[in-house]
Amino acid sequence: MTDPEAPLLLYVEDEVLIQVAVIDGLEEAGYRLVVAKSGAEALGLLEKHTADLRGIVTDINLGTGIDGWEVARTAREAIGGLPVVYVSAASQQDWTSHGVPGSVMIAKPFATAQVVVAISSLMTASDPPA
Amino acid sequence: MTDPEAPLLLYVEDEVLIQVAVIDGLEEAGYRLVVAKSGAEALGLLEKHTADLRGIVTDINLGTGIDGWEVARTAREAIGGLPVVYVSAASQQDWTSHGVPGSVMIAKPFATAQVVVAISSLMTASDPPA
Amino acid sequence: MTDPEAPLLLYVEDEVLIQVAVIDGLEEAGYRLVVAKSGAEALGLLEKHTADLRGIVTDINLGTGIDGWEVARTAREAIGGLPVVYVSAASQQDWTSHGVPGSVMIAKPFATAQVVVAISSLMTASDPPA
Amino acid sequence: MTDPEAPLLLYVEDEVLIQVAVIDGLEEAGYRLVVAKSGAEALGLLEKHTADLRGIVTDINLGTGIDGWEVARTAREAIGGLPVVYVSAASQQDWTSHGVPGSVMIAKPFATAQVVVAISSLMTASDPPA
Amino acid sequence: MTDPEAPLLLYVEDEVLIQVAVIDGLEEAGYRLVVAKSGAEALGLLEKHTADLRGIVTDINLGTGIDGWEVARTAREAIGGLPVVYVSAASQQDWTSHGVPGSVMIAKPFATAQVVVAISSLMTASDPPA
Amino acid sequence: MTDPEAPLLLYVEDEVLIQVAVIDGLEEAGYRLVVAKSGAEALGLLEKHTADLRGIVTDINLGTGIDGWEVARTAREAIGGLPVVYVSAASQQDWTSHGVPGSVMIAKPFATAQVVVAISSLMTASDPPA
Repeated sequence: MTDPEAPLLLYVEDEVLIQVAVIDGLEEAGYRLVVAKSGAEALGLLEKHTADLRGIVTDINLGTGIDGWEVARTAREAIGGLPVVYVSAASQQDWTSHGVPGSVMIAKPFATAQVVVAISSLMTASDPPA
Repeated sequence: MTDPEAPLLLYVEDEVLIQVAVIDGLEEAGYRLVVAKSGAEALGLLEKHTADLRGIVTDINLGTGIDGWEVARTAREAIGGLPVVYVSAASQQDWTSHGVPGSVMIAKPFATAQVVVAISSLMTASDPPA
Repeated sequence: MTDPEAPLLLYVEDEVLIQVAVIDGLEEAGYRLVVAKSGAEALGLLEKHTADLRGIVTDINLGTGIDGWEVARTAREAIGGLPVVYVSAASQQDWTSHGVPGSVMIAKPFATAQVVVAISSLMTASDPPA
Repeated sequence: MTDPEAPLLLYVEDEVLIQVAVIDGLEEAGYRLVVAKSGAEALGLLEKHTADLRGIVTDINLGTGIDGWEVARTAREAIGGLPVVYVSAASQQDWTSHGVPGSVMIAKPFATAQVVVAISSLMTASDPPA
Repeated sequence: MTDPEAPLLLYVEDEVLIQVAVIDGLEEAGYRLVVAKSGAEALGLLEKHTADLRGIVTDINLGTGIDGWEVARTAREAIGGLPVVYVSAASQQDWTSHGVPGSVMIAKPFATAQVVVAISSLMTASDPPA
Repeated sequence: MTDPEAPLLLYVEDEVLIQVAVIDGLEEAGYRLVVAKSGAEALGLLEKHTADLRGIVTDINLGTGIDGWEVARTAREAIGGLPVVYVSAASQQDWTSHGVPGSVMIAKPFATAQVVVAISSLMTASDPPA
């Protein structure tokens, strides 16, 4: 049973097996999740939860249509400085031109703890003094 | 069953529900805990465990009397550079004038993993070369 | 007299007064510079110097046409992980959605030393082990 | 001749010889300065320049009366997250209980470049996304 | 049941009780492990798994023969920038002359979460842009 | 005229042209220097100045005999956590197995400001709380 007060994350992933492991890990870590299987679904959830969204974990390649880069940029335009973790089999080089500042990129295959540690660190670091 | 050799943390929180979740999370992460429900109790435990205390996690608002800012400052005077994590619903702005250097501030509501990752990172970072 | 071996930076700025101060500061710091007054000119210089460019310092608002965000993204596509410093009177919020990872944003007005320290730190940090 | 648009720093130091070297270094680095020789004078300048102050460099021991710890805490209460650099012959241990979060402590004797690099880094880092 | 796709770590520890706790923690965190009880065994496993090894966690004192410092240096020569976490009862001072750059040193006694957070952070940080 | 109280650095470089530029930059930044042209000379100066040495900047390839890696390791054994900056045309990969923790590696060709910023940052960062 998840705490209704827990911080809410948007998680975007189209591969079901990976989805299951990451959802388990993040919920056990104490987060609430809304999950999207495509970029379009992600943008819809983003709009619906703008008021209380605290972070985003997104795959890059989401099949056809909107990719993870665009989901994250749109999220940052709506919520400045929102913590962003990319998960991808794509090259790191792409991240340096398509990612957003202060984000983290995790290469596949990865351990669930990498995602939990990355988003948890960003959520604390994104609470700066000023 | 907790390892009697595990690193000891002082945890200060007056809200029971939050206390339970964080205690579970920190013990599962491998820490031993002494727990205080007020600032006065915290100072007592601090004095008793100065020799083997390795870190502190403290709420800011502890009802009347001594608050979390004072607990942390007193702890740092006793043990220079002790890892400190503040947990609070209070504003980040207060932290920039009342917190101690090298501490971390986590806003409520938070996920248990944020506390575990923050204190674990600080405990490693606080073992510097010199 | 500049050392022909010194690391080469691309500096993009359309305001002449600011340009002069920053050019002086960066050359005194030991860098060689190619300077552009517009986004189009920047892209031309970027293409010409891809082989030996070591970093980029760019204003965001460059009059009409290509802005600093696009210059930096194009530079990163050509040279993965290239150090990027943005200088702007624009809001920080924009940077979180339009900037590239690992870049630095300096608000106007700024001291020349902020630019020198930022690009020098990034150039060292961008030489990672792997 | 200092640029009237340059970022303004408050510098607090009661030893004249040290003052001269640091003033030269910071002005050459592109900053404007207001300088205080005592804690009381510093608090007066702080109140006068709250609107446009961008950072503070302060000695700890300022003779009798208000010390550098109190100047910095007061400055942070007025301007959340203001960049703070302490310069002191005092022990680092004191800093861990009396300093403010995100500040830097430089031990005497020091090179002028340590002050310039420290405040310049903090001024950029203190411009976070959110 | 461990995911055959999970990232592979080499873990080197000659004390069985510590081994058991850390193995549990790392596997629960989502890593696959190969485990060595001596420096010689570690070098053998290193050679065998060079192609897919993603990180190393090593005790320093491994009885007679090859110690953890040498295991890590050999691993870094084979795989540049490989994430390295040292776990030791030895002094931090030794680490500053015998460790490798970008490594983390965790003092015994430690909590399992310190190891999980340290290696997970390094594995993400070791995926830099360039 | 150098301040006799300024922090003392050991600078090791066998190429005269590079030496001159870096010496100028570091002295202008406010440091005192002792300079060695070979590894053997560096070890002699290290022994002589152990009591007041505050940091080291060293080339890697110093002709025949002792190289910069060995100079830095010996310096760290004598003075735990001493700030170390390597300057080299050699590959970054070597640094990950031969360098010491918390050091910085600057690739040739470099700007003088990179050396000044790197050593100044390390000297402040190496003054940790505990």
